[in-house]
Amino acid sequence: MHGGDAVLKNIDPLLNADILYALAAMGHGDEVVICDAHFPADSVARKTVLGRVLRMDGVSAPRAVRAVLSVLPLDTFVDDPAGRMEIVGDATTLPAVQREAQREVDDAEGRALPFAPVERFAFYERAKNAYCVIATGEARGYGCFIFKKGVQLAPDAPEAAHGGTR
Amino acid sequence: MHGGDAVLKNIDPLLNADILYALAAMGHGDEVVICDAHFPADSVARKTVLGRVLRMDGVSAPRAVRAVLSVLPLDTFVDDPAGRMEIVGDATTLPAVQREAQREVDDAEGRALPFAPVERFAFYERAKNAYCVIATGEARGYGCFIFKKGVQLAPDAPEAAHGGTR
Repeated sequence: MHGGDAVLKNIDPLLNADILYALAAMGHGDEVVICDAHFPADSVARKTVLGRVLRMDGVSAPRAVRAVLSVLPLDTFVDDPAGRMEIVGDATTLPAVQREAQREVDDAEGRALPFAPVERFAFYERAKNAYCVIATGEARGYGCFIFKKGVQLAPDAPEAAHGGTR
Repeated sequence: MHGGDAVLKNIDPLLNADILYALAAMGHGDEVVICDAHFPADSVARKTVLGRVLRMDGVSAPRAVRAVLSVLPLDTFVDDPAGRMEIVGDATTLPAVQREAQREVDDAEGRALPFAPVERFAFYERAKNAYCVIATGEARGYGCFIFKKGVQLAPDAPEAAHGGTR
């Protein structure tokens, strides 16, 4: 998958120990930011739950989106579990980096799930309340996205019926 | 997979944030111990690289082996990447817990890969040099195993040919 399993079997090689920890530690409704190289990732990340920035240097933002969404379920309890930083003064145009990321979201979800536009300063505020921030090497502008983690609930059946995790 | 993906997609639900971190942080040749509830897990784990015990309470040792080997490649550079604590005074008999774990190893590897027996006190010493120890809720005796992490090398070709991780 994804050009070779470098560190663990069956897991995208971009998901290193720190990033796997963060994605697994997140719960329902927690958010993860994936941002370009221009975003104030370190200063914003210090306000997040994790409190320190995570890095995917040398990787484009859409490729990072692919890696994260290979394991992160998106929240189906809300209309907009995926957001993008909108171009200043233009809420409708998606630059190429966002169109590429949109394809990754749609592929991961198996349906069209359009990004909700988020105004630049509103994005900063929302990002500070996220669980964590992953800074990429994306050199293009507006390569900034936010995703809300969902749940994969077992059916509400007697325990013996679904077998738990054993 | 494995009775429901509770926390992340496509990842065994027993692999929580701390355990994923440890398995991903391990490199080639590092070892992970999976032990029963009787093993001196905490005292041994304090000597390991990670320095603290990881827990899968409420889980049998063979089930924990299945979870770990769903992502951990075993070392093909050595003859015995999988070891079991041998019964005191009997190096050949495998109790049921070890036979069950053996099936998990064989299933994960897609071939028969018999555990190497390790004498009890030799097991303790080897475990102290491991990267980490995962304590399970296994109530049967001799539910103690050690695994050496392998590598999944990209072919030695020019970078453009294999595409890296992008």
